[in-house]
Amino acid sequence: MKTQSATASQELFVSTEVMLKHWQGHRNLTRRTIEAFPEDKLFNYSVGDMRTFAQLVMEMIDIAVPGVKGLATGNWEQVEEFDHTKSMPNTKEGLLELWDKVTKIIDETWPNITSERFQKVEVAFGQYENANYDTLFYFVDNEIHHRGQGYVYLRSLGIEPPFFWER
Amino acid sequence: MKTQSATASQELFVSTEVMLKHWQGHRNLTRRTIEAFPEDKLFNYSVGDMRTFAQLVMEMIDIAVPGVKGLATGNWEQVEEFDHTKSMPNTKEGLLELWDKVTKIIDETWPNITSERFQKVEVAFGQYENANYDTLFYFVDNEIHHRGQGYVYLRSLGIEPPFFWER
Repeated sequence: MKTQSATASQELFVSTEVMLKHWQGHRNLTRRTIEAFPEDKLFNYSVGDMRTFAQLVMEMIDIAVPGVKGLATGNWEQVEEFDHTKSMPNTKEGLLELWDKVTKIIDETWPNITSERFQKVEVAFGQYENANYDTLFYFVDNEIHHRGQGYVYLRSLGIEPPFFWER
Repeated sequence: MKTQSATASQELFVSTEVMLKHWQGHRNLTRRTIEAFPEDKLFNYSVGDMRTFAQLVMEMIDIAVPGVKGLATGNWEQVEEFDHTKSMPNTKEGLLELWDKVTKIIDETWPNITSERFQKVEVAFGQYENANYDTLFYFVDNEIHHRGQGYVYLRSLGIEPPFFWER
């Protein structure tokens, strides 16, 4: 099972190939969560003065694209505070189209990220110093976290969210 | 750039040691989320007719304990539908105490779970057939998902949740 040394820290939990499937599985669920929203509620509804689900989704997109490129190349662009008031799609169709573009970019970029790259400690986005695997975990966890919040928005609208276990 | 290995699927993303830290880091954040709730709201408040945060936390606990034991031994107990109306703690202190017991059980059990165990496909809880690494991912993701929902409950109460990036 071990690919490199015999140290305990090298005991494989998951491979890079599995992690891609895991991430894209979550992204597929998030896509279906976007679809579950009525178009107006996607852009104008939230609970507790939080951001709309479209804004949360834009954050996921804005992290994923420079994120996967940074992981592949080590070139991390600084990400400014998110302000999507001008640049984000304003239809559900537009948002889903952008989502699907990101899916492709991730699939195309991932094979260039070696195991060694994931083990490296870098300053992601010029701000966050972590092992690259932790940075990637952060992208996925942040998506799960915000999608879970979208589920509450849906429930409070009387809409059944997609099954969490379907990817 | 790729290292020589038998198959691409063996390229290390994270080790079992890292995954334990990752899980316990999330559990530490969940603990602080429990603490952020006023005691009454923990047990009697939700949004959109969902379960209370205490009930969501009990689900995490009820998955984690038989879950980590199943991963270690291959003996998966059937988990019945969750009904905590009789058996769950009814104070914040009691819930946190139970949480900390689970933290210890996980730390003590984890070293018995080999990399080979995580790569095995098993029927978790007698119901869910998956690679054991995916089963463990499910435990963690389910916790992130429901904790994110707890964040909405807190926000809707005007309470600032803990920073998501602090573990």
